[in-house]
Amino acid sequence: MVTVRNIKLIIAYDGTGYHGFQEQRGSGLKTVQEVLEKSLSRLAGRSVRVIGAGRTDAGVHARGQVVNFDAAGWNIPLERVALAVNGLLPPDIAVLKAAEVEEGFHARFSSTAKTYCYTLYNSRVPSPFYHRYSLFVPRPLDLAAMQAAAGQLVGEHDFASFQAVGTPVKTTVRTLYNAEVGAEADLVRLIFRGNGFLYNMVRIMAGTLLEVGLGKRPSGEIAAILAARDRTRAGPTVPPRGLCLEEVEYGREGNRLDRAGRRY
Amino acid sequence: MVTVRNIKLIIAYDGTGYHGFQEQRGSGLKTVQEVLEKSLSRLAGRSVRVIGAGRTDAGVHARGQVVNFDAAGWNIPLERVALAVNGLLPPDIAVLKAAEVEEGFHARFSSTAKTYCYTLYNSRVPSPFYHRYSLFVPRPLDLAAMQAAAGQLVGEHDFASFQAVGTPVKTTVRTLYNAEVGAEADLVRLIFRGNGFLYNMVRIMAGTLLEVGLGKRPSGEIAAILAARDRTRAGPTVPPRGLCLEEVEYGREGNRLDRAGRRY
Repeated sequence: MVTVRNIKLIIAYDGTGYHGFQEQRGSGLKTVQEVLEKSLSRLAGRSVRVIGAGRTDAGVHARGQVVNFDAAGWNIPLERVALAVNGLLPPDIAVLKAAEVEEGFHARFSSTAKTYCYTLYNSRVPSPFYHRYSLFVPRPLDLAAMQAAAGQLVGEHDFASFQAVGTPVKTTVRTLYNAEVGAEADLVRLIFRGNGFLYNMVRIMAGTLLEVGLGKRPSGEIAAILAARDRTRAGPTVPPRGLCLEEVEYGREGNRLDRAGRRY
Repeated sequence: MVTVRNIKLIIAYDGTGYHGFQEQRGSGLKTVQEVLEKSLSRLAGRSVRVIGAGRTDAGVHARGQVVNFDAAGWNIPLERVALAVNGLLPPDIAVLKAAEVEEGFHARFSSTAKTYCYTLYNSRVPSPFYHRYSLFVPRPLDLAAMQAAAGQLVGEHDFASFQAVGTPVKTTVRTLYNAEVGAEADLVRLIFRGNGFLYNMVRIMAGTLLEVGLGKRPSGEIAAILAARDRTRAGPTVPPRGLCLEEVEYGREGNRLDRAGRRY
């Protein structure tokens, strides 16, 4: 009988120095998964492979990426796992939390919702401290128009217009639970929570909302863009450095309550 | 008659990739001053040298470094200077503001006060996003004890105990106007405002307050450390990456009011 000890880790990383999350065997390119697996393997004294919830692209960050792996035979107590792994990881990757989960838990297939944030640095002058984590936008933004446009993205839609061309998927229908535009000092954060995202979907939604904010397209155009199912109708794919995977959820879909007790 | 056009720039930089602010001729080491002068010289079509307010060390950041230079012959209007220079600077250096100042203004000699901030990241787990800008402290800190100790540093003192050994200066007497310990989420900020700082003084004060916060030394010990005029009595010099030059002032000394209207 093989005993499985399934451990889930919540990890954060600054993606600037990585060619994305997912291992690219034989490519010679450094990925977050590869560096994480190296540390876990060293601790385990055998080869450890992880399953990641989301494949973030090169330069994309995470504050709440989730991975799971089989820790059978590990004698490290759960409460020491984060400390032990962090001791081997470079400073741009960190384990925030470790939990033991049921055998059937799969970081990708078990997830019910993901939240991404795209950050704009909206100021007349750029910031050396936000360059790695945002897109610099020196012109004024119409946040109300952006929020109005974001609202039209919410719901179950065919997001084919918001997918990088040439990406084979079974269906381009996804459900977006929330799309919020929030501003705090010079930072404008575009927050998207949904049951799944197509390739480049968040960066294309962000690029489209940015054009709305700059007055380059009306906020009412979103419905027509969705209906067209045509990538050329949406805005540009904004750079990866503004994107961050904030959270991966494993509850029932749409079962969270906001502060006013509303289901969303 | 030679016309001088004295321009003052407020600049910010992420010092991670630099061997400090000040040019080190012939060393082959990249400094902020050298990179800034290269951009200014390109714009001016001649060699431009700047005077910096403070020589930040390798890895130290700035949100409010000040430089001045002679822009005689430049035909760039003042309101376009920041944009023009930022267009040539790398993303880890930015001009925040440009102003025309009187001929006698000297970024270093005219300054009356400087404010530095040392940031601690106080959490059980490290953050990949604050690694470049803070010192990770995984143990709980007694902030009240740190504030009590910081208060004893305020005033005119001989800070010889808080100076790197072997640094020749005329006098080790300096006036610290404020020393504040502030916490916001996982960040603990140690803010020091004074008329001048000895070499490594902020990093040694921060290292000493950190030991107080960790319970390694009593908060009441500061007066004795100051009186000893002995570097070995103070705490360690904490790493440069937590340090940031926040502001350089050019008013009369001690002429600012806090929110309660108190002179400080």
